[in-house]
Amino acid sequence: VTWVELPDDTGFGIDNLPLGVFLGGGRPGFRHGVRIGDSVLDLFATTEERVHQTRFLDPFLVDGPDAWRDRREQVTEWLTDERHRARVEPHLIPLEQVQLHRPIGVANYVDFYSSRQHAENVGRLFRPDADPLPPNWRHLPIGYHGRAGTVDVSGTPVVRPCGQLGPPADGGLPPFGPTRRLDFEAEVGFVVGAPSEPGDRVPVTDFAEHVFGVCLVNDWSARDLQAWEYVPLGPFLGKSFHTSMSPWIVPLAALEAARVPAPARDTELLPYLRDEDSPWSLDLALEVAINGEVVSRPPFRDMYWTPAQQLAHLTVNGASLLPGELFASGTVSGTSPDQWGSLLELSWNGAEPLQLADGSPRTFLEDGDVVTVSATAPGVGGGRISLGEVTGRVLPARG
Amino acid sequence: VTWVELPDDTGFGIDNLPLGVFLGGGRPGFRHGVRIGDSVLDLFATTEERVHQTRFLDPFLVDGPDAWRDRREQVTEWLTDERHRARVEPHLIPLEQVQLHRPIGVANYVDFYSSRQHAENVGRLFRPDADPLPPNWRHLPIGYHGRAGTVDVSGTPVVRPCGQLGPPADGGLPPFGPTRRLDFEAEVGFVVGAPSEPGDRVPVTDFAEHVFGVCLVNDWSARDLQAWEYVPLGPFLGKSFHTSMSPWIVPLAALEAARVPAPARDTELLPYLRDEDSPWSLDLALEVAINGEVVSRPPFRDMYWTPAQQLAHLTVNGASLLPGELFASGTVSGTSPDQWGSLLELSWNGAEPLQLADGSPRTFLEDGDVVTVSATAPGVGGGRISLGEVTGRVLPARG
Repeated sequence: VTWVELPDDTGFGIDNLPLGVFLGGGRPGFRHGVRIGDSVLDLFATTEERVHQTRFLDPFLVDGPDAWRDRREQVTEWLTDERHRARVEPHLIPLEQVQLHRPIGVANYVDFYSSRQHAENVGRLFRPDADPLPPNWRHLPIGYHGRAGTVDVSGTPVVRPCGQLGPPADGGLPPFGPTRRLDFEAEVGFVVGAPSEPGDRVPVTDFAEHVFGVCLVNDWSARDLQAWEYVPLGPFLGKSFHTSMSPWIVPLAALEAARVPAPARDTELLPYLRDEDSPWSLDLALEVAINGEVVSRPPFRDMYWTPAQQLAHLTVNGASLLPGELFASGTVSGTSPDQWGSLLELSWNGAEPLQLADGSPRTFLEDGDVVTVSATAPGVGGGRISLGEVTGRVLPARG
Repeated sequence: VTWVELPDDTGFGIDNLPLGVFLGGGRPGFRHGVRIGDSVLDLFATTEERVHQTRFLDPFLVDGPDAWRDRREQVTEWLTDERHRARVEPHLIPLEQVQLHRPIGVANYVDFYSSRQHAENVGRLFRPDADPLPPNWRHLPIGYHGRAGTVDVSGTPVVRPCGQLGPPADGGLPPFGPTRRLDFEAEVGFVVGAPSEPGDRVPVTDFAEHVFGVCLVNDWSARDLQAWEYVPLGPFLGKSFHTSMSPWIVPLAALEAARVPAPARDTELLPYLRDEDSPWSLDLALEVAINGEVVSRPPFRDMYWTPAQQLAHLTVNGASLLPGELFASGTVSGTSPDQWGSLLELSWNGAEPLQLADGSPRTFLEDGDVVTVSATAPGVGGGRISLGEVTGRVLPARG
């Protein structure tokens, strides 16, 4: 039990202890912090280690799982043993006195496509005459590189992007302007801490040797730009304008109670993707809200491909990992329509507008809309821990 | 005229002065250098400015075009005016005494697809029943994000990647192993120096306000992995194992004499892509050699989309630019078969093996092969300047 006074149902109790990067609290410079309740423990002030006074978590994460565990055990002791209270309590800063920043450098950003329901929904919408799943889908976790440099922290506004909205009519110019189909994608992100060497593979069983923790991701998407540009080289401007991530990275160590068996798969897998010995399905319950109203509750536990399989695939060609890189699950969509993780699916590409409680319909996002993705998971302490939230407001396109 | 003794036909005379990053020469730490002849001018030793004693050029490039021009004028004066010789000459280090390193951080890496001949060749090979050019090709420079973290400097060996080689036969497992279709792609890369703000667009006319210079890129590709994985989200493991870049970044200022009018285009462009007022076609003559034997001479001047159009497209959705990011042209292929920039094209997907002078045929690359891409351009001094080379040897797959 911690001596820190916690709000009821905080989700940020002693069994969570996520890491982030902040400014403020009466001291200068970027520092690493641990969230407990509605406070931030200043890791630099508490440990006096320079590695915790850096812009990103990367220089700490690079030290690997032993260092992560040692720090976690130390912080747990400090926050539970009354003998440390006098020294540590002055370094607890109320959350409202700090500004949270993007916690990692995002050396690479990979986005997968690992929800079968999502892939089938997209297939039915965009390729109605074909099998909704591409032929490779059951054999490998499809993924691609997104724009690392435009991943930013939750709360950063999203400017509606402009671009080519589709093919030209009558052989003229393609229509151009602000996207008319701005969407969110509710995803779960995984933060790589320990790097790998060029040429090395990271087997499924080594997932926790490299991945430090989990965050939430909103992969904002402009569906009209995307549909026109994506053949043959994949999504580009339809995604690259902005990606949002939550500020607190929840360590895998806090998610031990959330591990569940992998879902049934109907296709035999190559050895490098088999995960019987290392299932990394996670029972994370997501919620998506538009302007505060919950519009979907995607369950992460049903994802066909686990993050351990994603990492094994990402590195099977010998591509090296860097500290502070991010890979995300792809849109999390459950089997039921109230579990779908994008407006593309929820409004069936605009054909069936979502009715918000205030009576207004939504096909895609409007200027001023605020999208918030939050999530909880079973904690090792018996209750539920929080992954926090990733939120962002849509600003009008620039003239 | 410089007082530095230059080899005949050096290509690195006083009208070139590319920037790079090196170790060695009897002093500790990474430093920025300027190549002149077969020597490197140590910029940190000469200027005593800390910005030139950093791992990458990025902290210097971020200062923008005025700083780039001032430094270039200063270095030109030092290397031409005999009065500076006594002070500067001790900081000229013979090339063989230094190790060249990746010169930029590569915050983002984008690869385009801007040679019409290349796109048509690929279309004929992979989509024989369709129009070889995708319907969007004439309306926008197609591009995608590559893996920034596996871009490395020329000379770094390339381990043959493993992966899924294609669809399963008879409903079993996909074939798995070392790629059988390892290829090169001869490309030209553009290094962004000055960043842009999220939401801003960089018009075609502002190209030189953001782009510092030019390098050579080999976008190594595993064609079997790529063909199986790339629908619907684009190339991933078929490219992400390794990308090579040349060590010397040739400033745009050195390429003024290489600027040529844009090629004729048969389709009207949206205003943001029109480049009548700012043509950035460049007359770069590329050479590709396998084990020292020239197998192709791709001309860059015929590229359909210029780098200024690529940058305008990349940012039209408001995606911000970071210092030290890289974008590349895509494979440079001219109209004649001896000008094609990949083995996929040169061997027509393996159907017409290339005969090397030693009598051995090449469909795709073999272990031990060394691929070298080099290039020259008209210099402002009347002769030709060199862009140096990007080279790499293929190592066998890891067991």
